[in-house]
Amino acid sequence: MSKGLPKRSENYSEWYNELVKRADLAENSDVRGCMVIKPYGYAIWEKMQAVLDKKFKETGHSNAYFPLFVPKSLFEAEEKNAEGFAKECAVVTHYRLKNDPAKPGKLMVDPEARLEEELVVRPTSEAIIWNTYKNWVQSYRDLPLLINQWANVVRWEMRTRLFLRTAEFLWQEGHTAHATKEEALEEVKKMLDVYADFAENFMALPVVKGVKSENERFAGAEETYCIEALMQDGKALQAGTSHFLGQNFAKAFDVKFSDKTNKLEYVWGTSWGVSTRLMGALIMAHSDDEGLVLPPNLAPIQVVIVPIFKGEEQLAKISDKASALKKALEARGISVKFDATDKFTPGFKFAEYELKGVPLRIAMGPRDLENGTAELARRDTKTKETVALEGIEQKIESLLAEIQQSIYTKALQYRNDNTTVVNSFEEFKKTLDGKGGFVLAHWDGTSETEEKIKEETKATIRCIPLDFKEESGTCVYSGKPSKGRVLFARAY
Amino acid sequence: MSKGLPKRSENYSEWYNELVKRADLAENSDVRGCMVIKPYGYAIWEKMQAVLDKKFKETGHSNAYFPLFVPKSLFEAEEKNAEGFAKECAVVTHYRLKNDPAKPGKLMVDPEARLEEELVVRPTSEAIIWNTYKNWVQSYRDLPLLINQWANVVRWEMRTRLFLRTAEFLWQEGHTAHATKEEALEEVKKMLDVYADFAENFMALPVVKGVKSENERFAGAEETYCIEALMQDGKALQAGTSHFLGQNFAKAFDVKFSDKTNKLEYVWGTSWGVSTRLMGALIMAHSDDEGLVLPPNLAPIQVVIVPIFKGEEQLAKISDKASALKKALEARGISVKFDATDKFTPGFKFAEYELKGVPLRIAMGPRDLENGTAELARRDTKTKETVALEGIEQKIESLLAEIQQSIYTKALQYRNDNTTVVNSFEEFKKTLDGKGGFVLAHWDGTSETEEKIKEETKATIRCIPLDFKEESGTCVYSGKPSKGRVLFARAY
Repeated sequence: MSKGLPKRSENYSEWYNELVKRADLAENSDVRGCMVIKPYGYAIWEKMQAVLDKKFKETGHSNAYFPLFVPKSLFEAEEKNAEGFAKECAVVTHYRLKNDPAKPGKLMVDPEARLEEELVVRPTSEAIIWNTYKNWVQSYRDLPLLINQWANVVRWEMRTRLFLRTAEFLWQEGHTAHATKEEALEEVKKMLDVYADFAENFMALPVVKGVKSENERFAGAEETYCIEALMQDGKALQAGTSHFLGQNFAKAFDVKFSDKTNKLEYVWGTSWGVSTRLMGALIMAHSDDEGLVLPPNLAPIQVVIVPIFKGEEQLAKISDKASALKKALEARGISVKFDATDKFTPGFKFAEYELKGVPLRIAMGPRDLENGTAELARRDTKTKETVALEGIEQKIESLLAEIQQSIYTKALQYRNDNTTVVNSFEEFKKTLDGKGGFVLAHWDGTSETEEKIKEETKATIRCIPLDFKEESGTCVYSGKPSKGRVLFARAY
Repeated sequence: MSKGLPKRSENYSEWYNELVKRADLAENSDVRGCMVIKPYGYAIWEKMQAVLDKKFKETGHSNAYFPLFVPKSLFEAEEKNAEGFAKECAVVTHYRLKNDPAKPGKLMVDPEARLEEELVVRPTSEAIIWNTYKNWVQSYRDLPLLINQWANVVRWEMRTRLFLRTAEFLWQEGHTAHATKEEALEEVKKMLDVYADFAENFMALPVVKGVKSENERFAGAEETYCIEALMQDGKALQAGTSHFLGQNFAKAFDVKFSDKTNKLEYVWGTSWGVSTRLMGALIMAHSDDEGLVLPPNLAPIQVVIVPIFKGEEQLAKISDKASALKKALEARGISVKFDATDKFTPGFKFAEYELKGVPLRIAMGPRDLENGTAELARRDTKTKETVALEGIEQKIESLLAEIQQSIYTKALQYRNDNTTVVNSFEEFKKTLDGKGGFVLAHWDGTSETEEKIKEETKATIRCIPLDFKEESGTCVYSGKPSKGRVLFARAY
């Protein structure tokens, strides 16, 4: 293994990039802005998918699949949505390559194979899906439509970063249609709760639930709900969004239903999504200068057993014990790797599993065999203890739960320590330039003020928290009256 | 519900199209050649994915994700592969839309946002993946690389059909790299066996394992192994392929490793895939004029319980029993739907679940409550019996296993009845125009003969079966010597 990671305190950004690469999570590809998600990174994403997918199904949703391409005429039907994404669309214009007569062995786009209508590679699927819903909805009996899609989407971002901002990314997008506004709003909040629950109980990531200001709203939505998390460098990260679409897409795509009195009405829509960006949040929220720190609930390997041995005979004896333990742990639903290779030294392996964030490491040597013990090392606290093999399964099971809780508590403590109530613009700027983090400040409610604050400080309104308290005050920027504090931060 | 399906005997093709739509499996979208996979169809695909994914992992593979786009220069690196797919590639040439000054509210491709190098939407991922493997492989210690990807791919087919041939489809593609030729060949055969096992034990679909002739080989492969199945109209369908790539991609992308003696060698490759085309095979192999027939191992709903009731009180009583039964069956891992809605009559529901291929239907009425019985109806044989509720769980469990077996046996019987050994070209043509099916015939081993046979009969060599017996004879077409019989058919 190569030398250590850059330190967070010295270069957070470089630390993140190197960690993502060295822990085998992802790497840049030769396609501009597109990443390769490597097996270890993908295994974490699969765990995220499994948990979320179960939650979606438990809340009544089904998966389906809609086309990758959106014909330009459909794409532009909901004007605000189209406007919001037009600047970053990959566009398919041709459907064939041919041999390049000027360069033997090379290909060129066949000019005769130009599409009559250009196809946009989906940056999000509202247009193609609402165009389909038009045919699926006639009567109130057809509602609600509760559908989710796991898919890749493309947004031509100019500045990209692994997981956080890539031209292609993986996500899920829920798209629902309802008979009433109330029902749609209920869905929007329900899915926000699903995301918050996932973030807190699986990612060990405390989040603030809130509503976006108009400036930050999803293009085509009436209201965007979100969960916002805080990273270790004091910057915020939007971890999931749930949009109330009103009747905007229903009107753009003419999706009507006859209600119980036979009256034709437009349906009400929602959409909600989380993406591989969550991988970035997970990495940045908990990891340290030695590498990844993964919450046990999302770790592909929860426990690794490393034998300390000289020669075949010792290994055989340790393997017996280790294999029995592995089996006993797996019976409890714990994922275990027994790494018995002799290609690498135990010290090398220790560093490797530390880098990869395996929550618990068990070392077993000849002395342990004699004593009926093993050494347990926690990744999060780096504490070690020697414990009896007798009853170790229960110990490990409760330790994993403790680690999960402990990582969450640490992140929550960090967020609390880095959420600052400020009462003047001086304080506002000083906090941002100092410790950073979330800043709770009075705002006059106008887009103009929000934009000026952004220009001057690079901070945006992350959300108007759902637990917003009415409290009269004066806007830190304009001095105009404010009804309460909103959450500002510099953000990813 | 609308009137019945077209009959298979009258118009097989129309029967298939209508069935796919009416059973809510998939439909055509407004994007040329691209389908929408509806929730019920997608639920079947998810079951397929779950089984296959487990098998891939059990055989040592990990999932990963590679970019959707392939830069033209990478795409053309392996010339045969590029040539094979160039004619059907969707090509991204621009990365931005802008407002069309001539048409307010409309968008146009921004001519200033032309890509320096065009991007091909992956028709398959060998190029992008081998270009990545180049950096992942240095030493024999890095081998084998055993990776699978679940993804969407695009091939611009001119004539499309739901599931069987669509411009965009979903699939998995395994891509492995090995130190030796033997190991790569072993992998190719292992994955072919995985596919055959999946087809036979989950899809209830008997398949012939074999090797493709040179004409039908994957572009860029040295050898293509396949599984071939027979549909009810006597046409064959290729259900999965596993390719031995030799060192072709390693050479095109310069993927070398140093072996144990420090000598640099090119690695050996394989790739293998199955797609949503399997959905087409599943539908066509077993279904009948009343609708889908699903093997229990892939049915999203294995058992449906339909109450026969008048009024709330009767429904409440039946619901008690039905809910208890549902719970007991679910505890055995059986998926059950209890359809208590009063929107539709029992007769309507019966037809609907028949159309959707639910393997077992349980009807419970007031008479059943009195007698402690229920009516069980099998979808595959359409037989009914009244059975005691006491012990019904075991009965259902064994019945599901019996149905699975029975559907397979029926398909096997059909295939055996429709595999014909012929000894002359007259017989060959007569069989194809008569009952169709697989035809085993001597062939001289040349591409010329194969092409002429195809021209004259539309039949292709589906494969040279792995259980090929050396048997000297004369080619049915050319009269030249032949070493054995190969499998011909008209195919999807």
